[in-house]
Amino acid sequence: MNRERTIKVALAGCGTVGSGVLDIVVNRAESLACRTGVRFQVVGGLVADLSKKRSLPLDPHLLTDEPAALLSRDYDLLVEVMGGTTTARAVVLDALRAGKPVVTANKALLALHGAEVFRTAHAHSACVAFEASCAGGLPIVGAVLRGLQANRINQLVGIFNSTCNFVLTAMLDRGMTFADAVAEAQRSGYAEADPTLDVSGGDTAHKLTVLASLAFARNIEFSRIAMQGIDRLQLDDLRIAREMGYACKLLGIGRRVTNGPHAQNERLHLAVRPTLVPNAHPLAALTGASSGLWVQGDAVGETFYSGAGAGSLPTASAVVADMIEVATGATQATFNSLRIFNDQTAPAEYVDPGAPEGPFYVRFTFDSPRQDALSDLARALSDIPMRHERSHAASDRRHAVIITAPITCAELDTAVRAIASRLPLAGEPVVLPVLEV
Amino acid sequence: MNRERTIKVALAGCGTVGSGVLDIVVNRAESLACRTGVRFQVVGGLVADLSKKRSLPLDPHLLTDEPAALLSRDYDLLVEVMGGTTTARAVVLDALRAGKPVVTANKALLALHGAEVFRTAHAHSACVAFEASCAGGLPIVGAVLRGLQANRINQLVGIFNSTCNFVLTAMLDRGMTFADAVAEAQRSGYAEADPTLDVSGGDTAHKLTVLASLAFARNIEFSRIAMQGIDRLQLDDLRIAREMGYACKLLGIGRRVTNGPHAQNERLHLAVRPTLVPNAHPLAALTGASSGLWVQGDAVGETFYSGAGAGSLPTASAVVADMIEVATGATQATFNSLRIFNDQTAPAEYVDPGAPEGPFYVRFTFDSPRQDALSDLARALSDIPMRHERSHAASDRRHAVIITAPITCAELDTAVRAIASRLPLAGEPVVLPVLEV
Repeated sequence: MNRERTIKVALAGCGTVGSGVLDIVVNRAESLACRTGVRFQVVGGLVADLSKKRSLPLDPHLLTDEPAALLSRDYDLLVEVMGGTTTARAVVLDALRAGKPVVTANKALLALHGAEVFRTAHAHSACVAFEASCAGGLPIVGAVLRGLQANRINQLVGIFNSTCNFVLTAMLDRGMTFADAVAEAQRSGYAEADPTLDVSGGDTAHKLTVLASLAFARNIEFSRIAMQGIDRLQLDDLRIAREMGYACKLLGIGRRVTNGPHAQNERLHLAVRPTLVPNAHPLAALTGASSGLWVQGDAVGETFYSGAGAGSLPTASAVVADMIEVATGATQATFNSLRIFNDQTAPAEYVDPGAPEGPFYVRFTFDSPRQDALSDLARALSDIPMRHERSHAASDRRHAVIITAPITCAELDTAVRAIASRLPLAGEPVVLPVLEV
Repeated sequence: MNRERTIKVALAGCGTVGSGVLDIVVNRAESLACRTGVRFQVVGGLVADLSKKRSLPLDPHLLTDEPAALLSRDYDLLVEVMGGTTTARAVVLDALRAGKPVVTANKALLALHGAEVFRTAHAHSACVAFEASCAGGLPIVGAVLRGLQANRINQLVGIFNSTCNFVLTAMLDRGMTFADAVAEAQRSGYAEADPTLDVSGGDTAHKLTVLASLAFARNIEFSRIAMQGIDRLQLDDLRIAREMGYACKLLGIGRRVTNGPHAQNERLHLAVRPTLVPNAHPLAALTGASSGLWVQGDAVGETFYSGAGAGSLPTASAVVADMIEVATGATQATFNSLRIFNDQTAPAEYVDPGAPEGPFYVRFTFDSPRQDALSDLARALSDIPMRHERSHAASDRRHAVIITAPITCAELDTAVRAIASRLPLAGEPVVLPVLEV
């Protein structure tokens, strides 16, 4: 009991997250050992470019740009924080085949190759820990995987990409366009040089794949997640939504949909979309570079988690927590009975893309200011059940906005197309789902 | 991998939480086994009164009112959800001495006898899981113990008693007195017949003892927590606070206070007090019977957790999660390296009760309506640095309210006493701390 142990770590990736990991396990080693009884000795670091100047608390001779050289060291644990799905996949699989435990922050790897990674780990009595993959330092993987495991989870809704949340907040608070807000996020270090994976919703969909696989105990295909990013959002809609009592957020949503009394008819609704969140919902209050998760389980009811979702030290916080769990043996114990991404979870059934029902925000914009816009619309909208309507003047245009009553995507789409063909609109109507939980 | 295993459970306590546990492990056994690979067989239930009518999904012949009879069964795991610190302590210690793992929801037991319980567990190679002890189903023990373990935690602030939060919400939303709101909480099933432990702050202090012991890795004495309940709060103050942009909540607060550069000078500030929470803080938004925790760590920054903090199924959600963790072996692995409540954590040093510094809300009430109340006060208050002041008329009285700038408790107390001796006040001034994080 409470003997101090030393764990030899092979570190694949010495960038933003990797340097945060080194900061904790090297610079704060005494404090960490005192609290946890574990000390980490980094025996090698894999980098893409050996010639790049770095200021890491690590002997430069330990760095290599050869994956095979990294894995030839004497190590107890592979930490993969390099990102990507090519070299990262190869390194992770090689380590697992050698029976080594792996800690990874790589959501893309798990979303796209999770079944292979987990099957390989099980086959070689190894384990994989991935707390850092879904919301940086916010421990929501542990919450879903362990804290809530007595529950049948019915719904999860989250802000999983803090860069997008930073961009949306900057647009609204500072009146920026999408492009200017992205540039600001890049200057602030929140967005990559190529922000496509963030703003397209792809990163959110990767994380949703991982969390939904855990929450619903189903083998989920990343490619089946309906996905829409924030790159086409307009500031006008963020502002109108705010005036109507909503915050527009890029959400990842997973929900069980059961038709009839038989659980075997259960299907999953999985989607990534910019969504209007009512101000009373805790996700609406998250601004700037933060992440959050709202989960509803059959025993616990609703729980909510929020915090820094990215960044060097916050993400390293989760990586190092996993490293300690691997060191104590807790990860292996949990992993042995984990039913995720392996051959024992049944493939998910998905709801039809047109089937999800909910209220929607719809904005129609007329070519020229028209006093009678709403009454014209009211006639044209007779097929759409409505909750709220309002007109909104912005610059020289006239917006007419409605929040519908619950209606399916398919019904709404048909009605909106019919209206667009009959009325003199300026451009396509804007349709955004409204969160209802 | 993924073999189903059956765990024999001795269940000490078949009341609110115990019946929730049975609901999950008996009524939902198939679903649980399918998700987790674990099946629980309850081999005995301890009750205080065998003659009481119950509708439990458990063979009545398995019930006993004799602790020794329960522990004579063939069992793998003791689940203690009976509460109290006498029989519960004896049952838990006996099980641990027999080398059996224990899952408990009992915060009073851990706060008052934690060192003994944990020492006994370590001595007999057993383990203790206690996720349900601090916030019902909200998995904050796991968050602090595992998810955030790479951090040096500097502060934690929480709403740990959902009954008090229900009472405060009912007072404010429905204009009730404290006594009426407590009666309403009892009718709604949120408060016990004797609500003293809740409203006095004692239950919050129990939970704070457990969480702070984990977060600060110190041996903390329950008796050293400064404690004040909600039983003397007045509706007027809740209303004035709301008008000034604050929500009054019963908070448990733990904070490291370092004087000078040396960590060895570190002391802990631990307190349970009704506190004004700025509306922008996520704890301010928690209404009704909910719980929440805000934690600040050196790597992760700020994280926040909220959800149902009590009740039969929510609490059982955490108990059963722990039962599964014990079954997989994860609890034992974590527990072996756990530095809490045992001989290896140093005793905490505490800050002087008068030392904590912060802004405070102070209400002075004059005997009769006086237009010059604030100017009189302004003169009298020259020693107190102020942030805001306002006057507030309520019924036939005149309240003068200030929010001070940061000041120590001791300085404020001296100044307020001096004012009270000079001005014709109706009763004692009301002083409440304001949360500043």
